Amino acid sequence: MAKSVLTPQASDFPRWYQDVVAKAELADNGPVRGTMVIRPYGYAIWERMQAEIDSRIKAAGVSNAYFPLLIPESYLRREAEHVEGFSPELAVVTHGGGKKLEEPVVVRPTSETIINSYFAKWIQSYRDLPLLINQWANVVRWELRPRLFLRTTEFLWQEGHTAHASESDARDFALKILSDVYEDVMVNVLAIPVLKGRKTDNERFAGATTTWTCEAMMRDGKALQMGTSHELGQNFARAFDITYLDETGHQAHVWQTSWGVSTRLMGALVMVHGDDDGLRLPPRLAPVQVAVILVKADDGADVAAGALSDELKKAGVRVELDARTDTSFGRRAVDWELKGVPLRLEVGPRDLAQGIVVLARRDTGTKTPVALEGVGTAVVEALDAIHAALFDEADELRRSRTVDAENLAEAEAAAATGFAVLPMSVIGDSGETTLNRAGVSIRCVQTVGGDLPGPGEGTGTGAPLRAVVGRAY
Amino acid sequence: MAKSVLTPQASDFPRWYQDVVAKAELADNGPVRGTMVIRPYGYAIWERMQAEIDSRIKAAGVSNAYFPLLIPESYLRREAEHVEGFSPELAVVTHGGGKKLEEPVVVRPTSETIINSYFAKWIQSYRDLPLLINQWANVVRWELRPRLFLRTTEFLWQEGHTAHASESDARDFALKILSDVYEDVMVNVLAIPVLKGRKTDNERFAGATTTWTCEAMMRDGKALQMGTSHELGQNFARAFDITYLDETGHQAHVWQTSWGVSTRLMGALVMVHGDDDGLRLPPRLAPVQVAVILVKADDGADVAAGALSDELKKAGVRVELDARTDTSFGRRAVDWELKGVPLRLEVGPRDLAQGIVVLARRDTGTKTPVALEGVGTAVVEALDAIHAALFDEADELRRSRTVDAENLAEAEAAAATGFAVLPMSVIGDSGETTLNRAGVSIRCVQTVGGDLPGPGEGTGTGAPLRAVVGRAY
Repeated sequence: MAKSVLTPQASDFPRWYQDVVAKAELADNGPVRGTMVIRPYGYAIWERMQAEIDSRIKAAGVSNAYFPLLIPESYLRREAEHVEGFSPELAVVTHGGGKKLEEPVVVRPTSETIINSYFAKWIQSYRDLPLLINQWANVVRWELRPRLFLRTTEFLWQEGHTAHASESDARDFALKILSDVYEDVMVNVLAIPVLKGRKTDNERFAGATTTWTCEAMMRDGKALQMGTSHELGQNFARAFDITYLDETGHQAHVWQTSWGVSTRLMGALVMVHGDDDGLRLPPRLAPVQVAVILVKADDGADVAAGALSDELKKAGVRVELDARTDTSFGRRAVDWELKGVPLRLEVGPRDLAQGIVVLARRDTGTKTPVALEGVGTAVVEALDAIHAALFDEADELRRSRTVDAENLAEAEAAAATGFAVLPMSVIGDSGETTLNRAGVSIRCVQTVGGDLPGPGEGTGTGAPLRAVVGRAY
Repeated sequence: MAKSVLTPQASDFPRWYQDVVAKAELADNGPVRGTMVIRPYGYAIWERMQAEIDSRIKAAGVSNAYFPLLIPESYLRREAEHVEGFSPELAVVTHGGGKKLEEPVVVRPTSETIINSYFAKWIQSYRDLPLLINQWANVVRWELRPRLFLRTTEFLWQEGHTAHASESDARDFALKILSDVYEDVMVNVLAIPVLKGRKTDNERFAGATTTWTCEAMMRDGKALQMGTSHELGQNFARAFDITYLDETGHQAHVWQTSWGVSTRLMGALVMVHGDDDGLRLPPRLAPVQVAVILVKADDGADVAAGALSDELKKAGVRVELDARTDTSFGRRAVDWELKGVPLRLEVGPRDLAQGIVVLARRDTGTKTPVALEGVGTAVVEALDAIHAALFDEADELRRSRTVDAENLAEAEAAAATGFAVLPMSVIGDSGETTLNRAGVSIRCVQTVGGDLPGPGEGTGTGAPLRAVVGRAY
């Protein structure tokens, strides 16, 4: 059968990406440039991501809340670096209720300013700390080169905002979110290996003192920033006068963090696991883990397919029964492959007569006959195996495409197909600019062992650091 | 102890409402007029409402999706009544990315226009119908007389949008949502009795052919529109050219519905159940159903309180352990009352010595000693009893404040303290205007038996209808 309706990855990766997003019915372009319609199948995947992220955020002691979409322009100006960073991307509302507004309001590009203006009211004493808040929201950043999920004028995300009594408390919390929430979801749900590290001053969030990041390699060797967690120091605390009475009776400014992941993760999911036949969803994320496909309704196969589907549902597996026998089996199989459903259970009269059904894995394409009574166990085992296989495949790709570079020229060359790792001392003061001019960026800074650098490391007599560089989305 | 920190309901109901919303930490005013900050406790309640509504929407076969916040102004103009209805309330973005936009875009006040422009692309044949979509989103309608939750410039809601092959399919679905989703959540989760009926032409949604509504009586006798479900006929189908090939091979326009409930339900919750001591949350909704309050940590009471809390959690009860014994017991009890937690379990060394704890009901204020081994059962029974009691109390209030009126003057008089019911034939052609001038509106139209009117009823030789009238939020 003529399988693929997609441009092959090898011939044009960006076109392949567009094709998958459209044909798997994940998203459409909106009418206003750079905006996006997330279609039901795409949104079902996003809802599962949200649930996994949200439960971990709550487990970290954070409460959800909701702050207004519309922010007075003057709020943004209070933190100098912040307004400089976001001004070029703002959408500005000048008219409301049929009248010109006295002060224009901006559609939030992020919510540090408005949230911190309330932190200033809510925080009085050390007893109010830490204050740990998260919101799920839409934000708008005017985008000149939009790409669905990866770079859209409006996107959906969570943004966490916290206040702490000390710098080390803030740092610990920023890193806890990075590891226990973001990395954990990426690795254990999305099956995406990530590098953790620190952003350079040049790459850090406008208004932060330190930005921590999770970076992943896409199948074309390019990097995607998956999520960031910022230490804000006392920048916003000073701008919004957020002080508390400490245990010794003195007023002090709080120390803060903010952190977010967005619908961009949907783009990562497509580009890390997808192949020429479409999506390949990691089983713990997939809205449909198993498609039970009725091959033909003859000889009670329809009853058997229904019973198998019910049995798997009872076992907690997310199942969809496909009994559309008026559409050819081949066409349906191609559609389930396109949508990346991890497992297909093909139920037909001929196999049933022998007491078996066929289990087809999306990741490898292998088909295995399974005895009817063993289906439950086989499905659960296969789902686990697929998660591990997808992770390993992505990890192996990154490993094979990461080069130890000794100088900038080698790093630049390596970034054509993947990542390069080189000492920060080699990059020196001007190396980052040189790399940037060549379209290469420092994705993150780590210890030479690949760990997160501690305070002071990489400066003066501190331990030496290394950079991971690559081309980025 | 000096209990209440609230203005009494009887002395100033609107002020009491403001007080509760502030002191129970539900919400704050935003900096842009009419916007709202939903604080963690308020948001936790909203999240539970969302989950209850969402699961019922999904059970009705509807898929969630997400459409852009920003809509080209020209889209709104395509449906004449719709643009006329919403124009005065629009927030308009004129600048994006540092430039004046060629065409201004509006921040969605509702999404019929943008969603239907996609329905036109997605619907080809009768096989694509019904198309059932919902989104959870923020919308903006510029508000001149804002009130937290009840009437805010930005609010959170779900909006459902569906397309069907026939008028009767669309009507059936609009009514299914009204009853199986909205009424069911209001009655069985929020413990709020509602009247269902049809809006008059004057009160229906801009662009709809019929608007169905759920209306409730607040404790001050005023009405609140709780949720609406609209039949859109073919108005948007014609405006956006949404056609399908029917089974006989002819092109036809689809028939549509849209429906929504919003954070306004939070206001209803406060005003239907709240009393002079604060909120009274219905148990099935409450984020915290039982506060286990450690009276004093002496003689192992702290261990016992922890064990009771764990035991209840294991039984599926939402529990919070309050071991803040550095704050007085009275102050903590007042705070839990303010927050409307349905049950308090007071655990102190003196009672424990006798093998008991005290179970305090928020709705009635009654305190009952319960033997330790019977706590689980007592809690579950009390939670059920509280749901029923809150519903009955609200139902009784509405009954006692609803008057059968024989003419407009009687209806107007009754609306000072509650609802009036009178025949539509008495209202006639001009009666609605007369009532409106007196600040009274027709909340809904029903059969004389209180049921939903069918097509044709109330017109010509159809069955007679009645109106429920009142003053409304």
